[in-house]
Amino acid sequence: MQEIKKYVEENKQRFLDELFELLRFPSVSADPKYKGDVLKTADYVAQKLKDAGADKVEICETAGYPIVYGEKIVDESLPTVLIYGHYDVQPADPLELWKTPPFEPTIRDGKIYARGACDDKGQFYMHVKAFELMMKTNTLACNVKFMIEGEEEVGSANLGIFVNANVERLKADVVLISDTSMISMENPSIETGLRGLAYMEVEVVGPNRDLHSGVYGGAVANPITILCKMIASLHDENNHITIPAFYNKVVELTDGEKTALNSAPFDLQEYKKDLEIDAEWGEKGYSTLERTGTRPTLEVNGIWGGYIGEGAKTVLPSKANAKISMRLVPHQSSDEIAEIFTKHFESIAPDYVKVKVTAHHGGEPVVTPTDSIAYRAAEQAIVDSFGKKPIPTRGGGSIPIVALFESALGIKSVLFGFGLDSDALHSPNEKYDIYNYYKGIETLPLFHKYFAELSKG
Amino acid sequence: MQEIKKYVEENKQRFLDELFELLRFPSVSADPKYKGDVLKTADYVAQKLKDAGADKVEICETAGYPIVYGEKIVDESLPTVLIYGHYDVQPADPLELWKTPPFEPTIRDGKIYARGACDDKGQFYMHVKAFELMMKTNTLACNVKFMIEGEEEVGSANLGIFVNANVERLKADVVLISDTSMISMENPSIETGLRGLAYMEVEVVGPNRDLHSGVYGGAVANPITILCKMIASLHDENNHITIPAFYNKVVELTDGEKTALNSAPFDLQEYKKDLEIDAEWGEKGYSTLERTGTRPTLEVNGIWGGYIGEGAKTVLPSKANAKISMRLVPHQSSDEIAEIFTKHFESIAPDYVKVKVTAHHGGEPVVTPTDSIAYRAAEQAIVDSFGKKPIPTRGGGSIPIVALFESALGIKSVLFGFGLDSDALHSPNEKYDIYNYYKGIETLPLFHKYFAELSKG
Repeated sequence: MQEIKKYVEENKQRFLDELFELLRFPSVSADPKYKGDVLKTADYVAQKLKDAGADKVEICETAGYPIVYGEKIVDESLPTVLIYGHYDVQPADPLELWKTPPFEPTIRDGKIYARGACDDKGQFYMHVKAFELMMKTNTLACNVKFMIEGEEEVGSANLGIFVNANVERLKADVVLISDTSMISMENPSIETGLRGLAYMEVEVVGPNRDLHSGVYGGAVANPITILCKMIASLHDENNHITIPAFYNKVVELTDGEKTALNSAPFDLQEYKKDLEIDAEWGEKGYSTLERTGTRPTLEVNGIWGGYIGEGAKTVLPSKANAKISMRLVPHQSSDEIAEIFTKHFESIAPDYVKVKVTAHHGGEPVVTPTDSIAYRAAEQAIVDSFGKKPIPTRGGGSIPIVALFESALGIKSVLFGFGLDSDALHSPNEKYDIYNYYKGIETLPLFHKYFAELSKG
Repeated sequence: MQEIKKYVEENKQRFLDELFELLRFPSVSADPKYKGDVLKTADYVAQKLKDAGADKVEICETAGYPIVYGEKIVDESLPTVLIYGHYDVQPADPLELWKTPPFEPTIRDGKIYARGACDDKGQFYMHVKAFELMMKTNTLACNVKFMIEGEEEVGSANLGIFVNANVERLKADVVLISDTSMISMENPSIETGLRGLAYMEVEVVGPNRDLHSGVYGGAVANPITILCKMIASLHDENNHITIPAFYNKVVELTDGEKTALNSAPFDLQEYKKDLEIDAEWGEKGYSTLERTGTRPTLEVNGIWGGYIGEGAKTVLPSKANAKISMRLVPHQSSDEIAEIFTKHFESIAPDYVKVKVTAHHGGEPVVTPTDSIAYRAAEQAIVDSFGKKPIPTRGGGSIPIVALFESALGIKSVLFGFGLDSDALHSPNEKYDIYNYYKGIETLPLFHKYFAELSKG
């Protein structure tokens, strides 16, 4: 532990400078105009893996953005840790809400502000630096493989193909991922479950052209109104989702699981104050932690239709659109829910409109057992580093790849996140605390150490 | 009638040539680059009023484009007809969709193609030629006043100021306006009502920032969902508007009025086919013509919130917005309905969101009683000219100036339009049938004749 702290202390500034360099690439995978920047980011990651001591570093081409691979096989008899991360980031808009430019990382109050600071550049780069530390201090206890992709924010469409085509190369005993959050630095936690995702886009079409609302209003169905009525009907008065069969495979938590989950420190007043809301919302009969961690949800992520400029235009539009996504819990399947949703949404469309439903990428829900070697290694690493046992939590978000690794490689993942809920992922002013960055670099070598020890028996 | 036809026949070509000259001015009030052309148009109109025999012709300056005034007072004891029209036109773009240039009037199949051919140069110029005819044939039965403005297509911002400052000069018994349509030449009609307008913008705010829908979804109210629920609640299952007191001042049509209104030729199958919809929509208990002409309506003209770009973004947005307008019928007041809407929309907002409602411009509904002298004069003129009684119709749109004349001058308007719904107002290839132009010139003197006769009692 002392040796680790010493190395981090001596290389502090360089660790930060390198991350800043990485954050300056606007590697927005969703927007084709950044293509050159995304590719340059892959080059940078590959170079840094080499510098840290990785062998067989390769920028693996895919039909989309490349996957950066690298490895260090110390000894075939040692367990192998496959580290996953992603070097692409979410779009930065709305730009006007950023206090400092998203791709010019800036420190304020001990926090790094930049798009990708936490999700996931700041977090995956901790692994690169922890690996460098273990290499330089001769403490690498496991074999290590890196797989850093560039399409996580657009659905990892090519990752499955790559993983299935490289099962031998990616052979490992556990996947280690830092792309999630802890409750707080005082209350370290490890996510043991993630929700899945089904993401739909719907279009409601009324008349074949935009109409004058004075001439046709009141006599022709307005697709915005109809879409609103359809969306409104998707939750009942208790905020249960009304789609038939939606909850069929959902398993209720046991009383024990409920108690453990709700023992996590959580202050509803603080939560509301942070978001500046007067009241929380959600499915009747569940606590906020249960709602975000263990219950499937349905959210409208975007809606648009008609005139949305300045001033007034009296149009009755031809169509209205929305993006609607559902978070799934264990046993629900993304494809199945997408199908159930489509059928239901089509069935509730009234005669006077036509409805089109299409599915974007999805992801399956996963759970990590807390009695596994990998979980126990992470737990012990946190005990050493934080002086406190971590709380097992259920995450609301989705990392579809976790299910992919489970099915394609037959191994579980450990979600060893060092972010905070306040990091503003996907939002303006995304940040990552410098403290958490260094804390991660210090803690990760301990995971490798304990994972090797516990694997021995 | 024979004398009228003879005069029109003898002057046919000149009437057309003069209109063509008027149509060649690109008097686009919305675009400052046409300022010189708009002013030249006013000069031309003033000259033609003088040529036709008007006295006291004046180009009255306003803060915007001038209003052309002229009058002929035959005898103080006779009734006075105030003729309103506008010499400005809509922008002509998209230019590439015009078969012949918008400001080079061209005849095809008996129709004059040009911007302003129908709206409103072709229509108001019929009054100038009908006035010339009555002057030359010594048949002027009423005093006549002309008020032709140049800002109708940009909201008539200065007309109210002018009218209020010239109440004495504009004193009249009726306003005569040709700026609307008939059902067809075989089914002549007169618009007897126009709906008013209240136009609102609403904003629903949830959390103070965009959130990750995986982390917060299910536990924090989504402003899009809430806005949809609020909008959905504005119409009940019979498509009645649910805002309390909204219908309080709405007067149901009498059975006679209903029968007259629904006697207008209207083919629901054709209507649906034209719009490519499988079913019409609307308030239960009313026909399509009643819905658009006589009932107040509420339409969402625009909605937006969250992520509306390509692909998928899992955001739970901070806010959602919509533009919502209501068409009003006689006795409803724009300000009052705006207030009722605001109060209601605020009252249905649940605890977990904040709502902001603002009002854009409005307009008052108007109605011409079919038992008025002015309406009966127009009706008799059509019977003489078309050999058929006109059908009284209700227009769905709004002409705010009609309410202005009613409040400032205390007189009703007769909407004596000779256009057709197929004239492509505000669109490329606007046209006006030559037949309708001459028919209007022939019919208008009959209105003056009957208005004088009926006024005598």
